[in-house]
Amino acid sequence: MRRLKLVLEYDGTAYHGWQVQPGLDTIQARVEAALSRLAGGPVHVMGAGRTDAGVHALGQVASCTADLRLDDRGLQRALNALLPQDIVVCGVESVAAEFDARRSARSKTYCYTLLRRGYPSALHRRVSLYVPWVLDLEAMADAARFLVGTHDFSAFRAGTCAAATSVRTVSRATWRAEGEVWRFEIVGNAFLQHMVRIIVGTLLDVGRGRRKPADLPEILGSRDRRRAGKTAPPHGLCLVAVEY
Amino acid sequence: MRRLKLVLEYDGTAYHGWQVQPGLDTIQARVEAALSRLAGGPVHVMGAGRTDAGVHALGQVASCTADLRLDDRGLQRALNALLPQDIVVCGVESVAAEFDARRSARSKTYCYTLLRRGYPSALHRRVSLYVPWVLDLEAMADAARFLVGTHDFSAFRAGTCAAATSVRTVSRATWRAEGEVWRFEIVGNAFLQHMVRIIVGTLLDVGRGRRKPADLPEILGSRDRRRAGKTAPPHGLCLVAVEY
Repeated sequence: MRRLKLVLEYDGTAYHGWQVQPGLDTIQARVEAALSRLAGGPVHVMGAGRTDAGVHALGQVASCTADLRLDDRGLQRALNALLPQDIVVCGVESVAAEFDARRSARSKTYCYTLLRRGYPSALHRRVSLYVPWVLDLEAMADAARFLVGTHDFSAFRAGTCAAATSVRTVSRATWRAEGEVWRFEIVGNAFLQHMVRIIVGTLLDVGRGRRKPADLPEILGSRDRRRAGKTAPPHGLCLVAVEY
Repeated sequence: MRRLKLVLEYDGTAYHGWQVQPGLDTIQARVEAALSRLAGGPVHVMGAGRTDAGVHALGQVASCTADLRLDDRGLQRALNALLPQDIVVCGVESVAAEFDARRSARSKTYCYTLLRRGYPSALHRRVSLYVPWVLDLEAMADAARFLVGTHDFSAFRAGTCAAATSVRTVSRATWRAEGEVWRFEIVGNAFLQHMVRIIVGTLLDVGRGRRKPADLPEILGSRDRRRAGKTAPPHGLCLVAVEY
């Protein structure tokens, strides 16, 4: 038996998210099916982040224990041959038995992409949110700064979130515009369900002038989901990397 | 009646190319259907370039004459509401009656994108050619330089190409690598059928060491399609812009 760390890229468009759900096509189910076929018996994988339906990943990390004769590189090739084209194994590494993709993670980096222009995009429609209205980038950046630090993020948490505590530490929350493509990057030790999407929805309100940057501390302090903005659509979001 | 210039972006994955073909879903057919619906009668459009099945565009240009009451911006919005998500009108402009998207074009810019790494991509699979083998970028750039100028491009022309002459002028042919993403940009006054894809197939042979940069003048001079490389797959190619 070998302990493995897999790094995964996926286009989440066609899937009901990462997590296995009975009767639904999920990324975890696809990865487990490919590994199980190679191992000749059931293999369970643990993902670092449970990405929502429609959310993408450039660097999701999963761990598993399996009895496989292939070496790391051979296993990567075999998995990529078995997986559909929208799920790719970027790396396979044999790791210590204690490694757990979820619990060993120090931090995660998410990126939310906006397309800020007057008409939608054919080529980037799956990986960015089209925003036709004028946005104040500086106000959004100012608002984002209030998120950095250790806070109770109850206001930015889905009603269905099952986490035991809502205190999280955000170490970075920045906006970067390259022409029409605006990217929000957020790094934190862990994230609550829908947390990044609710944050983006709230920052979009700030960008449109419906809220002020200084409202953020108040929203955080309220710990009331109803005070924050709408949950931004999933397709703009990408789990970029998990740091260990 | 008004003469119009449309700039179009499209994801060519789902279509049988630009050109109308009986019984097949093409981009021209979709654009004509949307325009005809707004005009309440048949509208014919002429595209600057007949992109192949699977080829994308960021800046295809089409011209048409139509009786439409909407202003340019209103027409753009109405067309984008009618067109499928993978075809987008980036701009509409009223132009002089003489304007012809094809005949008035001074030059076109195409880009071919490679993903040069050891495993494929889930998120970029539709818009880049995955190349797992080592390529010599400098050799490919050296070879590309021989294409610049006015030449008979018969060696880089599909057997089915119907153009009257095979002499074309290429004003630019450069490679640019940004990490794993390698881009070939070629600008010319016009292109023969499959010309860019056959050029890329030939440059890939050079990159792999199967041919030398200095073979290019010889291949050009032979005017023999069999001397050039394979036609590279369509999905790496994009019509970036048409200059007038």
